Amino acid sequence: MTWHTIRRKEPGLPPGTLVHTGEEKSERVNITIMAYNAETFEERQVENIADCLPLKENFTVTWISVDGVHQISVVEEAGKHFDIHPLVLEDIVNVNQRPKMEDHEQYIFLVFPAIYYDQEEETIKAEQISLILGPRFLISFQETNKDIFGSIKERIRNNKGVIRKKGTDYLAYALLDTVVDSYFVILEMLGEKLDAIEEGLVNAPGVEILRSIHKLRTNCTFLRKSLWPLRELVASLERSGSNLLQDFTRAYLRDVYDHVIQIIEGIETFRDMLSGILDVYLSSVNNRMNEVMKVLTIIATLFIPLSFIAGIYGMNFEYMPELKWKWGYFTVLGVMALVSFFMLLYFKLKKWF
Amino acid sequence: MTWHTIRRKEPGLPPGTLVHTGEEKSERVNITIMAYNAETFEERQVENIADCLPLKENFTVTWISVDGVHQISVVEEAGKHFDIHPLVLEDIVNVNQRPKMEDHEQYIFLVFPAIYYDQEEETIKAEQISLILGPRFLISFQETNKDIFGSIKERIRNNKGVIRKKGTDYLAYALLDTVVDSYFVILEMLGEKLDAIEEGLVNAPGVEILRSIHKLRTNCTFLRKSLWPLRELVASLERSGSNLLQDFTRAYLRDVYDHVIQIIEGIETFRDMLSGILDVYLSSVNNRMNEVMKVLTIIATLFIPLSFIAGIYGMNFEYMPELKWKWGYFTVLGVMALVSFFMLLYFKLKKWF
Amino acid sequence: MTWHTIRRKEPGLPPGTLVHTGEEKSERVNITIMAYNAETFEERQVENIADCLPLKENFTVTWISVDGVHQISVVEEAGKHFDIHPLVLEDIVNVNQRPKMEDHEQYIFLVFPAIYYDQEEETIKAEQISLILGPRFLISFQETNKDIFGSIKERIRNNKGVIRKKGTDYLAYALLDTVVDSYFVILEMLGEKLDAIEEGLVNAPGVEILRSIHKLRTNCTFLRKSLWPLRELVASLERSGSNLLQDFTRAYLRDVYDHVIQIIEGIETFRDMLSGILDVYLSSVNNRMNEVMKVLTIIATLFIPLSFIAGIYGMNFEYMPELKWKWGYFTVLGVMALVSFFMLLYFKLKKWF
Amino acid sequence: MTWHTIRRKEPGLPPGTLVHTGEEKSERVNITIMAYNAETFEERQVENIADCLPLKENFTVTWISVDGVHQISVVEEAGKHFDIHPLVLEDIVNVNQRPKMEDHEQYIFLVFPAIYYDQEEETIKAEQISLILGPRFLISFQETNKDIFGSIKERIRNNKGVIRKKGTDYLAYALLDTVVDSYFVILEMLGEKLDAIEEGLVNAPGVEILRSIHKLRTNCTFLRKSLWPLRELVASLERSGSNLLQDFTRAYLRDVYDHVIQIIEGIETFRDMLSGILDVYLSSVNNRMNEVMKVLTIIATLFIPLSFIAGIYGMNFEYMPELKWKWGYFTVLGVMALVSFFMLLYFKLKKWF
Amino acid sequence: MTWHTIRRKEPGLPPGTLVHTGEEKSERVNITIMAYNAETFEERQVENIADCLPLKENFTVTWISVDGVHQISVVEEAGKHFDIHPLVLEDIVNVNQRPKMEDHEQYIFLVFPAIYYDQEEETIKAEQISLILGPRFLISFQETNKDIFGSIKERIRNNKGVIRKKGTDYLAYALLDTVVDSYFVILEMLGEKLDAIEEGLVNAPGVEILRSIHKLRTNCTFLRKSLWPLRELVASLERSGSNLLQDFTRAYLRDVYDHVIQIIEGIETFRDMLSGILDVYLSSVNNRMNEVMKVLTIIATLFIPLSFIAGIYGMNFEYMPELKWKWGYFTVLGVMALVSFFMLLYFKLKKWF
Repeated sequence: MTWHTIRRKEPGLPPGTLVHTGEEKSERVNITIMAYNAETFEERQVENIADCLPLKENFTVTWISVDGVHQISVVEEAGKHFDIHPLVLEDIVNVNQRPKMEDHEQYIFLVFPAIYYDQEEETIKAEQISLILGPRFLISFQETNKDIFGSIKERIRNNKGVIRKKGTDYLAYALLDTVVDSYFVILEMLGEKLDAIEEGLVNAPGVEILRSIHKLRTNCTFLRKSLWPLRELVASLERSGSNLLQDFTRAYLRDVYDHVIQIIEGIETFRDMLSGILDVYLSSVNNRMNEVMKVLTIIATLFIPLSFIAGIYGMNFEYMPELKWKWGYFTVLGVMALVSFFMLLYFKLKKWF
Repeated sequence: MTWHTIRRKEPGLPPGTLVHTGEEKSERVNITIMAYNAETFEERQVENIADCLPLKENFTVTWISVDGVHQISVVEEAGKHFDIHPLVLEDIVNVNQRPKMEDHEQYIFLVFPAIYYDQEEETIKAEQISLILGPRFLISFQETNKDIFGSIKERIRNNKGVIRKKGTDYLAYALLDTVVDSYFVILEMLGEKLDAIEEGLVNAPGVEILRSIHKLRTNCTFLRKSLWPLRELVASLERSGSNLLQDFTRAYLRDVYDHVIQIIEGIETFRDMLSGILDVYLSSVNNRMNEVMKVLTIIATLFIPLSFIAGIYGMNFEYMPELKWKWGYFTVLGVMALVSFFMLLYFKLKKWF
Repeated sequence: MTWHTIRRKEPGLPPGTLVHTGEEKSERVNITIMAYNAETFEERQVENIADCLPLKENFTVTWISVDGVHQISVVEEAGKHFDIHPLVLEDIVNVNQRPKMEDHEQYIFLVFPAIYYDQEEETIKAEQISLILGPRFLISFQETNKDIFGSIKERIRNNKGVIRKKGTDYLAYALLDTVVDSYFVILEMLGEKLDAIEEGLVNAPGVEILRSIHKLRTNCTFLRKSLWPLRELVASLERSGSNLLQDFTRAYLRDVYDHVIQIIEGIETFRDMLSGILDVYLSSVNNRMNEVMKVLTIIATLFIPLSFIAGIYGMNFEYMPELKWKWGYFTVLGVMALVSFFMLLYFKLKKWF
Repeated sequence: MTWHTIRRKEPGLPPGTLVHTGEEKSERVNITIMAYNAETFEERQVENIADCLPLKENFTVTWISVDGVHQISVVEEAGKHFDIHPLVLEDIVNVNQRPKMEDHEQYIFLVFPAIYYDQEEETIKAEQISLILGPRFLISFQETNKDIFGSIKERIRNNKGVIRKKGTDYLAYALLDTVVDSYFVILEMLGEKLDAIEEGLVNAPGVEILRSIHKLRTNCTFLRKSLWPLRELVASLERSGSNLLQDFTRAYLRDVYDHVIQIIEGIETFRDMLSGILDVYLSSVNNRMNEVMKVLTIIATLFIPLSFIAGIYGMNFEYMPELKWKWGYFTVLGVMALVSFFMLLYFKLKKWF
Repeated sequence: MTWHTIRRKEPGLPPGTLVHTGEEKSERVNITIMAYNAETFEERQVENIADCLPLKENFTVTWISVDGVHQISVVEEAGKHFDIHPLVLEDIVNVNQRPKMEDHEQYIFLVFPAIYYDQEEETIKAEQISLILGPRFLISFQETNKDIFGSIKERIRNNKGVIRKKGTDYLAYALLDTVVDSYFVILEMLGEKLDAIEEGLVNAPGVEILRSIHKLRTNCTFLRKSLWPLRELVASLERSGSNLLQDFTRAYLRDVYDHVIQIIEGIETFRDMLSGILDVYLSSVNNRMNEVMKVLTIIATLFIPLSFIAGIYGMNFEYMPELKWKWGYFTVLGVMALVSFFMLLYFKLKKWF
């Protein structure tokens, strides 16, 4: 997904038609289940969503993690078992959604991008995360097999922190928090690139700096596009009156909200800095050019009149009295020296060098 | 309709005077009727609006689709039979309306543009769609005979999806959704053009890139102008308390709203990117120019002093001792070589090449 | 009135002092009275406002149209007879008011500019229209004798449309609508100028295009300055709870509001386009310049080394072995040809032509 | 006070410490008292604030006008007698306050700048006006002895207008109105400067225009900085529910509000125009430069090849057959003429002149 | 902390994990306690937070000032004794927080940066101040041992002003006010730099001005980033309904709010001015360049044709009649003088000098 991909299902299809619009990013779809309560926990790889339904009864939280959304049947099955609105299912497979939060009473639907930096293409890439947050279950969909939420799984396995003591809302918060935290990593990296550009500007302002500025700016635009709706998402989640959310979790969501704001402000500052850097770059290029032109001008204006004088006495007229003079040659050399001196003086006064 | 056409009826005419302000885009006005309920459906071409009134009784939904608004009498007839406010009729024939939604209690009036891309002129064009949404009927007006809503007609004929089970509000949603979906197609196309420009920038930054940027920018401006009021239209339709709209449909309207927002954000991102690309383009042109100038400067500053030396010894003074020297000529050649060497060294130190 | 005239009465004068601040645009002040109801109507030229008071009793609407506000006594007389607040009277004669609407319970005060295009000076000019809308009377003030509202007078005389059947509020709407409609004419004209500029850009980008852009931009700035408060005026008029306004009229005011918004959006689009056109213009000029410089550079870098070679053999040293060679001259010519060839090859590789 | 002076008391001092932060603009502090009611009036110069307390009993309004705030004791005395909050006193002597209005129940505190144009330095300067509006008294503080409110004193002395019949709120309005009116004078002056710049642009675009643009822009920035909070001040004064303000006065405050808005819009328009003018200026300079370069290019590209030809036949080879030809010289001259002709033709085709 | 440092704890750690993210700015952590009421006061250096708990009983205010947050155990201990939310503790040690205010009922948490100017690096630096404002205690955390609040400690020791008579809210206000006041110092300093740049622009517009502009702009961006959330902080503190705040203090908070607004407006004005200065700078550089080019053009266009004439008569044709003429040489000199004269005339007419 590059920054302007908005591929969508064909216009005219009835709403709720499930059509996967992204690239197929993983070969097969993995379904992992983590069911837990404060005391015990169970982790399992299943083939069908249906396999996890029994677990739902015995644990306070059943987390169904689906890696890969290109297999429509899996999403449809989840939709059937958990009674999900067809438009929600459409949004899950239609992978370039704008971050948003929808409260469907029985469940809350969250969709937002997890981002990572592609070192080769030097661009930020994203995959879509969809969460369906029910009273005792949470279904997460992601496009690839990347272990984005590995640290959370670890915390559940090792009963680290409060996660095992809390409900699905805290789990959803933890997933969201992990994704938002990874934005800081990207931000830090963009900041380093910005520093590198600024440094390069001082040392050797070449044309490749322009490309770096453009690339960085594109990345900022991409991030910014996701972040503003992400901010809305977190705000409306925190403020929602849904009884799927407990007050305990709300305080943590407010913390996530602060982080999103901080990232947005970082991006805005980057954009501001970039436009300042561009100004400096353009002026530097201009200044170097001016310096070059000044040398040309000095040399040319100095020698053009002198060459003209030499040209005069190179003419072959039969009667040119100066040519016969004993000191004619040296007089002309003297005149040339004088002309040079006054021109240099003039340049000096004009502060050309 | 180009982007700034706002042709209107003459100032001073009484309000409610019906004057068609667009070009006549189709030769004759077609009136098609699709009447349906969950079980049965009927499709008919009629001559007069009056011909469709009997159908209204027997079906839950009667869709009267009028292709061509330049024949004032048809619009007037519709106005009379369905008791439409004269200002609404004026807006239908006055084809460059701003997208808007008006709740007239007995019916809701929607007007918005359907857009398509004119490959020849490389501009986005639009035709105005007007919808009058009543309790059991929906009248749609469009300017041309283009089969914009073909896929929906197909869904009605084949009883595909839920459309036949729902009322006029769902039909209106379906029409609106089809139009909004077609914006994505345009957006995708503009995105491809943007990519092409960005690529061209790297390979060969010529003057025609500037024209492409300008054209793309104009198209974005055109789209943007329609989209902001379209956003308002969808929002106020969804939020309206009108009992012509059922809750079932509202969820779908929210979906359309999300799409419009997504398109708007896409356009804004394009504009942002375009201004970045323009900066890169201008700098590239500048850099190429500077390179050219640098070559000129190097050649000129190198040879101007040498030519001067040659000029000195081309003078015809009778008494020029150097000319008699055995090695005079080779000494001068040596001096010239030395001067060149030091100048090249200077250029090297200045990092001119 | 040019776009920045804000001439005002001297600071320090007590509020309510009537001082006319505009140019005297008409020689004498004309007072025309049109009194009407659905059945009958009367039109009269009077000398004093007092002359129209008897008519007020017999008709539902008495429209007193005052052409020229430089005669303070007329405005004062109107103020006395209709009990108008001194600040309102001050605003009427103080002609460069910002469009605004004031609800004074007994009457509503509206002030807004009517604009027209001065072909000679190529600028938009304005004159101030003030309306005092009472329960059975409407007083309109304008600065000149221009027949701005001729079409409305015609409609009253001929009983065309609903105007004779409605009250003073509908008349006020009709006057406002006429003025707003005339903005569309100006807008269309500016659009044509924009097209002309865009076309000129393609054919021959000369310096006069810059002046056209600047002129157009100034005109847009002028219009924009009036339009935003005009929008407020119409909105607050429509939304006001005053019982001088009937629901019937409100629907029409909403229509006017839509028009104002449409004009504002048109202007904003123009401004956006103009800044795009300026970018294209500046780049075009730059490109032309670069082309010129490139020719200079090619010619200069080609001939400067050749001239140097010729200069070498123009030296008058006694001992220059090459000069004696039989084929010396032709060898040198050959060397020159070779140098030219390689330089042209280099230019070709650099894609300079 | 230049536009960015924000000198303040040292950080860390307890709040309410009175430290005068401006320059000492007058030698001594004058205290003038004007006490009046509808029938009678008294004017007096006093030494101490205490001297005016007896007057307060006999008149409806006692206006204590203090010229000069650098003498802390006077402000402290006023604070003690009228029971003013220490932070208010601090704001009075701390002269670079942002315009604001504070309702302290017993009194309303207003602070805003009076501006004037310093012809010598060509900048707008300001002095701070503070008003304490009580039920029967009004204290005004200003920094200098300038007779800013002379016209109001005159109106009180001569019982002109309604001022003697109204309370302290109307007096406060009158003072505020006088200051706001003086902004129009500055605005008009800036407008004239703008016109002068625009005219100069057409005739002779020199470097001093750039300085004028910059100066004007700085002045606009300065004004704008004061005006936005001034707008807030007037709005919150008008809307405040304080019973120190009568409805009669509120209408007049609304008028002042309109004026402030009008001034703000004027300034914004100026800024907009200035950036347009800067564009035109930069392009004009560019165009002139291009013209100069074109002449250089034409001359240089014309003569460089010709000089080369002359150089060829200036070589001293023993065997150069052309030199012996009878018509050699004239042939060469002919060739040169031909070359010139074709080059001029090429320039003509390229539309270089 | 430079302007874009947003280093954070590793993504994936459970929330509430205390990880210090800043540099270790002081060697050891100092804990100072100042406990006071109107009559008496006690100051003490302690090792553990626990040591100060007894004091809390005997005094109305106990201020625990912790210098250095890199020692996690101290913060944890404070959290345990005063029952602080883990996310608050995390924010205290996670030192690059966005300024914010959180009302936790038992206490209010404030976090904001104190700034100072690093003369060596010519950048603004910041350290994070965290305040926990409880009913009878206030804990302040800062990163370094800098005596930021020395003047307040002095006021407490000497019982200066009202500070000893008031509660913890007034103390919090005093700390906040001290920090905000120090922003004015920075602002004043930036203003001086701006003046220096503006002056340098007039005298000698060199490339180092560009760097100064860029540096100043970066500093403004940095300040601005902190100030907008600081404004929110103060506003929500003042408006909060918490009963930890007394009305007496609210008036003082409003004063702080005014100061923050004033600083923000100052910064915005600086940014505005800087972009104006950049325009002037770029144009000045351009103008100087044009002047240089004009001299080149004049010299070159003047001498190129003259040199060509000299070149003609330097040719060695055997038959060149002019060469034999007695006055040939002087005629040519005369022609050259004439050509020069007309070219200079042309330049004069073109206003090139």
